[in-house]
Amino acid sequence: MITFSEVLTVIEQGIHHIQYPNQPCRLYLPIKYILSSKGKKIRPALTLLACNLYQEDVSKAVDAALAWEIFHNFTLMHDDLMDNADKRRGETSVHKKWDNNTAILSGDTMLVLAYKYISRYSGEKLPILLNLFNQTTTEIFEGQEYDMQFETRSEVTEEEYLNMIRLKTAVMIGACLKTGAIIGGADEKDQSKLYEFGINLGLAFQIQDDILDVYGDSSVFGKNIGGDILCNKKTFLLISALNVANQSQKAELLNWLNTNNRPEEKINAVTALYNQLEIKNKARKRMDEYYEKAITALDQVKASQEEKKTLKSLAEELMNRKS
Amino acid sequence: MITFSEVLTVIEQGIHHIQYPNQPCRLYLPIKYILSSKGKKIRPALTLLACNLYQEDVSKAVDAALAWEIFHNFTLMHDDLMDNADKRRGETSVHKKWDNNTAILSGDTMLVLAYKYISRYSGEKLPILLNLFNQTTTEIFEGQEYDMQFETRSEVTEEEYLNMIRLKTAVMIGACLKTGAIIGGADEKDQSKLYEFGINLGLAFQIQDDILDVYGDSSVFGKNIGGDILCNKKTFLLISALNVANQSQKAELLNWLNTNNRPEEKINAVTALYNQLEIKNKARKRMDEYYEKAITALDQVKASQEEKKTLKSLAEELMNRKS
Repeated sequence: MITFSEVLTVIEQGIHHIQYPNQPCRLYLPIKYILSSKGKKIRPALTLLACNLYQEDVSKAVDAALAWEIFHNFTLMHDDLMDNADKRRGETSVHKKWDNNTAILSGDTMLVLAYKYISRYSGEKLPILLNLFNQTTTEIFEGQEYDMQFETRSEVTEEEYLNMIRLKTAVMIGACLKTGAIIGGADEKDQSKLYEFGINLGLAFQIQDDILDVYGDSSVFGKNIGGDILCNKKTFLLISALNVANQSQKAELLNWLNTNNRPEEKINAVTALYNQLEIKNKARKRMDEYYEKAITALDQVKASQEEKKTLKSLAEELMNRKS
Repeated sequence: MITFSEVLTVIEQGIHHIQYPNQPCRLYLPIKYILSSKGKKIRPALTLLACNLYQEDVSKAVDAALAWEIFHNFTLMHDDLMDNADKRRGETSVHKKWDNNTAILSGDTMLVLAYKYISRYSGEKLPILLNLFNQTTTEIFEGQEYDMQFETRSEVTEEEYLNMIRLKTAVMIGACLKTGAIIGGADEKDQSKLYEFGINLGLAFQIQDDILDVYGDSSVFGKNIGGDILCNKKTFLLISALNVANQSQKAELLNWLNTNNRPEEKINAVTALYNQLEIKNKARKRMDEYYEKAITALDQVKASQEEKKTLKSLAEELMNRKS
């Protein structure tokens, strides 16, 4: 059984060995830059760990794991541009360090680079992996589209929100696991259970992300605290708050949604309202529910508890993360 | 043997039958919009015509032809945003009709949609088509990167320019033909000759485009005349002009390159200099050289002259186009 730190080493070596043409360097430097920033590498790790449930040697899954890591970083590059986010993992985002066009074009190049890694598979596995990749990446774009649309809407239902984060975040977690399972040789039932584990873990993960944006520690979070509040992001916290607020609290919240010129005050006031309404606990509770669903699905995967240990500890750690 | 108008019908039906999810409509509407605009559909036509050299029934090549047409339109969507172009084929460009983020995200979705069409192939052909697609699309991004870099440089050599248009324009024409040849069952030599035909046709086509940008008829060209001059695009015309200009003409040209506040005057003055230097003839001559190379390569393809007739007339027509 492979450990998480062994998995990370394999991924980091893989990233290190990606071959880039020397020219044009302005196209390839931003790709190297974002791929070498200190991300958690959860997604490629999930691919390797899922494969490892069925095969001791995970080397066959490395290319697919890299495809997902490259794709994930491509979405960050384009999303940061679309969301006008200055920082990513504590460093300057690509469109700020270079410019908008660089982020667009290097991003496009990364998307094709991800496909190049998926294309390294052959035989029967190639179309299966490719179709999963095609479908999942399209869903992720749909999720980002909803996320952006929600910013300009004053109210979003919890159901709409959950569908959005399923598309934007959870399907990639599910697909990374399923990819590893396919390469490892899992049967279809196990593939589905691992996907289900990933979907629920992803939903829990995103609600956790919403919590950290408000209640995280800026020195370790890697993004500015309150960023979601400032751009009126319809997070689980905001939607819950609008649902349980009384009339005057709701009016106050809606008023802050229309205020864009006093950033610090806005963050403090909205956070104070969340505190009054005990929103952090509510979000945590929902997060825990998804986490339990995730673990139930993982328990149904046919491998032994011992074999699933690394995946389970990773899931646990994600739920207790600070960044 | 299939006629060009039959080919167009097949492609238009194919585009018409692309299935889009209903939601989120803001993601999919711009894709429908750009794909239904009046493009010449040259690239997918080349795929079908190349296939038709080896198989009477071109239906097997339709998915790949659509992949290229979708990819081509994706590049227009992102390039128009990067180049800040307001019009495309006489209509408002996507980032102007909607907004920048829509152009980014719908474009990304289109790129994956193109891959979905390539992914419809199976067996041995899938990895071959996929690798050609991966390599070519990456080269196209490199070409766009050089094109953008050149705008901020005062001088670009003819060699650099030709490498840029090879990457940005010609490799796609070559790859569209090669794709059709692969699907039709051509041997490797024919695949290469058709690719070579495409590369040279593409180079001729792009020089023609540079000519039309200055000397075209705005009512049929679909873009504003002089657009390249205004954004200091290093076209074949500008590079040739800088090469043959005397000292004072060169100083005048460089002066106009640094002037951005008098658009109409700039277009007129630069065009007048081109006329003095007989740049249009020089460009036409170079275009004709590439065209002849293209025809020589096509002549070496093993099919009969009769079978190659439609491809040859298409190439001829492209050289005499007005838009």
